[in-house]
Amino acid sequence: MKNNFKVIIPGFLGRREFLKTGSTFLTAISAPSALAAATFPQHMREPGSMDEPYGQPSKYERRTTRSSRGRSPAKISSSSYTPIDQQKGIITPSGLHYTIHHSGIPDITPNDHKLYIHGMTDRNLKLSICDLKRYPITGNFNFLECDGNSWAQGRMPNAVDMNCQELHGLVSGSEWLGVPVKLLLQEAGVKAKGKWVIAEGADSSTHARSIPIEKMMSDAIIALYQNGERLRPAQGYPMRLFLPGWEGNTSVKWLRRLEIVDVLAYTKDESRAYTETLPDGSIEGFSLRMGVKSIITHPSAGQQLPDKGFYEIQGLAWSGLGKIRKVEVSDNGGNTWHPAELQGPALAKALTRFSLPWKWSGQSARILSRATDEQGIIQPTHLEWKKRYYKGSYKHYNAIQTWYISESGAVKNVY
Amino acid sequence: MKNNFKVIIPGFLGRREFLKTGSTFLTAISAPSALAAATFPQHMREPGSMDEPYGQPSKYERRTTRSSRGRSPAKISSSSYTPIDQQKGIITPSGLHYTIHHSGIPDITPNDHKLYIHGMTDRNLKLSICDLKRYPITGNFNFLECDGNSWAQGRMPNAVDMNCQELHGLVSGSEWLGVPVKLLLQEAGVKAKGKWVIAEGADSSTHARSIPIEKMMSDAIIALYQNGERLRPAQGYPMRLFLPGWEGNTSVKWLRRLEIVDVLAYTKDESRAYTETLPDGSIEGFSLRMGVKSIITHPSAGQQLPDKGFYEIQGLAWSGLGKIRKVEVSDNGGNTWHPAELQGPALAKALTRFSLPWKWSGQSARILSRATDEQGIIQPTHLEWKKRYYKGSYKHYNAIQTWYISESGAVKNVY
Repeated sequence: MKNNFKVIIPGFLGRREFLKTGSTFLTAISAPSALAAATFPQHMREPGSMDEPYGQPSKYERRTTRSSRGRSPAKISSSSYTPIDQQKGIITPSGLHYTIHHSGIPDITPNDHKLYIHGMTDRNLKLSICDLKRYPITGNFNFLECDGNSWAQGRMPNAVDMNCQELHGLVSGSEWLGVPVKLLLQEAGVKAKGKWVIAEGADSSTHARSIPIEKMMSDAIIALYQNGERLRPAQGYPMRLFLPGWEGNTSVKWLRRLEIVDVLAYTKDESRAYTETLPDGSIEGFSLRMGVKSIITHPSAGQQLPDKGFYEIQGLAWSGLGKIRKVEVSDNGGNTWHPAELQGPALAKALTRFSLPWKWSGQSARILSRATDEQGIIQPTHLEWKKRYYKGSYKHYNAIQTWYISESGAVKNVY
Repeated sequence: MKNNFKVIIPGFLGRREFLKTGSTFLTAISAPSALAAATFPQHMREPGSMDEPYGQPSKYERRTTRSSRGRSPAKISSSSYTPIDQQKGIITPSGLHYTIHHSGIPDITPNDHKLYIHGMTDRNLKLSICDLKRYPITGNFNFLECDGNSWAQGRMPNAVDMNCQELHGLVSGSEWLGVPVKLLLQEAGVKAKGKWVIAEGADSSTHARSIPIEKMMSDAIIALYQNGERLRPAQGYPMRLFLPGWEGNTSVKWLRRLEIVDVLAYTKDESRAYTETLPDGSIEGFSLRMGVKSIITHPSAGQQLPDKGFYEIQGLAWSGLGKIRKVEVSDNGGNTWHPAELQGPALAKALTRFSLPWKWSGQSARILSRATDEQGIIQPTHLEWKKRYYKGSYKHYNAIQTWYISESGAVKNVY
């Protein structure tokens, strides 16, 4: 019954070809003697446990958590990385969504919290959670990515020892829903001179960003819900700004005010933190949209292939400009490329799944993926990306990621 | 600045009209004095808390949990209801997904668990989790609904006092991913006489169903992932069968074997539990597909409207036959209907959001929704539904749900 694969090694397989040839690593058994009642395991001999009011993951999956780094001595500034190498699909469990906190997670009593809309308005507004819940809600499946995601690939030679989660875990996907900012600004009445909106959070670092009014009037929402339930504290409870496709820090958490102004504020978060240095030494700020990007999550750095033979190369792609149009995969360091299959709904500004059946020969291989978005923009190579910025710059890193598979099956980063 | 609504009460509003007129319930404030630093609340005066490796919901949202009923004296048979009245969007948080357990949740060590494929095959297969993880994965956003969902509307006059969660909470939505059953059956080689597949779980009640081979060869998967992470114990960890669009009990949890047979097994779960009685007293079994259905979740029974004025009527619709084509809403007991807006991706066999802006006059009102799927099948009325079954039958209840809003703003079920 076992057919051999009919393609040259190393080789990508069409899905039809996989169906025809089978996985070839399975052991056939003569008779399922293990199914006899006499061999029932203990969990089939006694009733199991009761459900919880709010369920939790399996105790056997406790290794799948966020990893942390960069905690300050005061333990209040930290980042938590999503295990995207373990994630399948375009939803990140809310408990595994990445976070960057400048001053920890504030404990905000929802009934006391208000959103103020003020500045160059016809009237100032003060909105409670109850007020906001009476508005229409809108939203989508969207990715959220830190502009510092993949920073180590931008500047750290020792990134070669980092795994996929540590390298690229500052991106996550959720269904975000809330009140269109447009409705609130129209209700307040924005004066003609109002061109920017300062969004400020209620954490003790009062994280703040200036957002162009055009973005606020298009797809910006006051997010109240994530993945079907109320926003969690680490994601800005009781409310956050959410700007689809833009760098994560602009989606201000624990939002307390929107101030309409005529010139941008140059808050500390935009004069210092969220800027890039260009080759001539000048500073680029307000590069707010995230670029087109893709990552192979399986196999990926830190994983170990058990044996040669069949694997499905799987990954995620996204673009702040819209939908992903195509993803190509190479297993020879980029010499030749093969189109991957885009799976599930390929939504705008959302994580998009791609996959391609592949047979690993057992010889060393370099696998990589290259995404193109609906505007035709192609993910750059590492060298193309480096040319855009001053040496040592690392923000908005979206270059093609190569993984190296050694003959032992260990998967490592290629810097 | 405050315009009045220009429609006749009671009235549905176009989204454009809402933009024009505003919500009208907000209080304008003269100056945002509450924003002065001197008035900062405590959480802005000190750093907040650290992130957890696996995050949790807000402590202020602890009332949003599953409700339970029907626990047996031995406390091992139970059902947990999703708070769909609180859910926004098409994803149910995995911790709030509905469950029905006949014998509790078994504690299965994943490395010891195997899936057997046997019976009328060319060869029998034994698959570990590691084996399955090497196969291609596929899947979609899908609803899962118990065939007994909304049972109280089918037969209980006192359902009038039940809330939306208690009435309709045995439906949830997730992104389900796993290995196509088709691949495994092709690898085993199904003999020509094999027409049914017995799927059996590893719980101590050995829940088992006979599934037509055609379903297994189309969109059935061995689900390993739900909402981005490994399946949870209450959802069948380490693996479950998942059959999109079919009644929940056929998606056998803790799956241990698939046996290919020539005639259906009439397991206890299909000779007794999962059948309907027709008007002539005969028994209908294997009505496996869930019908077209919709529920208004906001406002819904158990909720209290704070005041007359603007509300967005929001709800969920789904069909086991494919996509939702349209949802209509009425606020006068079904005399006149208005098309609701379908929001987000309207995916096949998945929860689909609908909404319609509405102004509540303050007078009593009956609101209801009616879904039509892509095959043109329209959700039945309560009386149409009753005619199909013997008195007292309650499974596969998918009739139009009416909510009654009293002058006090209390929302109640209409039986």
